[in-house]
Amino acid sequence: MAGGGPRYEKFERDVVEPEQFLLDERKERIDRVVSQRTRNFTVVLDRLEDNFNMAAVLRTCESMGVQEVHVVINPDAPFIPNSRVAQGCDKWLDVHLYKTFAECREHLKGQGFSLYASALREGATSLYSLRFDTKFAMVFGNERFGVSDDVLSGVDGTFWVPMKGFSQSLNISAAASASISRAIAWRDEHLGGSGDLTPDEAQALRERFYLLGVKQRKRLVKATQR
Amino acid sequence: MAGGGPRYEKFERDVVEPEQFLLDERKERIDRVVSQRTRNFTVVLDRLEDNFNMAAVLRTCESMGVQEVHVVINPDAPFIPNSRVAQGCDKWLDVHLYKTFAECREHLKGQGFSLYASALREGATSLYSLRFDTKFAMVFGNERFGVSDDVLSGVDGTFWVPMKGFSQSLNISAAASASISRAIAWRDEHLGGSGDLTPDEAQALRERFYLLGVKQRKRLVKATQR
Repeated sequence: MAGGGPRYEKFERDVVEPEQFLLDERKERIDRVVSQRTRNFTVVLDRLEDNFNMAAVLRTCESMGVQEVHVVINPDAPFIPNSRVAQGCDKWLDVHLYKTFAECREHLKGQGFSLYASALREGATSLYSLRFDTKFAMVFGNERFGVSDDVLSGVDGTFWVPMKGFSQSLNISAAASASISRAIAWRDEHLGGSGDLTPDEAQALRERFYLLGVKQRKRLVKATQR
Repeated sequence: MAGGGPRYEKFERDVVEPEQFLLDERKERIDRVVSQRTRNFTVVLDRLEDNFNMAAVLRTCESMGVQEVHVVINPDAPFIPNSRVAQGCDKWLDVHLYKTFAECREHLKGQGFSLYASALREGATSLYSLRFDTKFAMVFGNERFGVSDDVLSGVDGTFWVPMKGFSQSLNISAAASASISRAIAWRDEHLGGSGDLTPDEAQALRERFYLLGVKQRKRLVKATQR
């Protein structure tokens, strides 16, 4: 289900040498983004219902270099991120959709991820004590109901953003931002950077982004010619 | 304009010994919150227009122990934080309202604050290089137009949350959360905690929160009796 997000067509291999259609500046931008991408830190959204939150979390992931986002669909609320908030960022992401958390968990476990759910409960680890030097997935649950029992019984642990006020939780886009920015800052500080694609992964992503860049350019040219 | 947020009545001094109406557990909770409050780190919202963002930022501040929030009103968008997102947290805050950024700046400068605006621009400091051991105010600007020229010419500096993707900005509730959580975590780590009210300030806030707690309890009792 990868390939530029669920609402974008799968990228095509029929465009030859897309590089020739892109300005050097654009290519450098793409190369820089690719060099800062990670597939070893990821985010799971379990049955969110607010399209503002969905969009804000996608944008946070994209802007911080998190390439993959895993979404367990809420049967009562279709996954349609608010486009004003997302600003089209999801085309630069791999958004994987699942019908159940079990499917999502199986996929991530198969790839060697530890899963930690954001939840206020006895024994939850402070965000600020977490380490991010192994494959790590942060799971965020529904805005009203929190993380489900399915999630709680399927994760390796829970964490929380330490709260000091009467409000015992953050809005989910705020919780995700505090958590993701912490993870990326930790990786920058302890690993010397957060990008860690293999040369093959980087090459594949670069090609895909060049193609997306060309398509975007074609659209712009068409719009100008109207 | 202090005293529990703009939409709440000014607290009254006519209730004698509110402590007697509160359970010990509730008092301990209030005391703990007060001990973790700061008035030396604060947030300025300059003419926001989205009530979801307003609410999310208030809730982030309250839950992280930031007692004061300064709001420059947007003449085209009244300050009415989304109540579903704020969840009533604003009654535990000092929300100061201003008609212009100049007024807000004068107030904060008079109290010895440095003002830093969140803005992507040449020379902006990384969030992760900022220190939070002096009076520090973070300024966030309008969702569409960013921080205004008034703000840029009136602040001591600008900062940004380092971006690694194609999106060159975060949604404002996400930007505020990444920034505020960083500031509070920095204070915890370097100052041994983020609460720093003087004994007098703490006592005044405790009394006010007891009163608010009693009022809340009275409302609950009334609701039960209906």
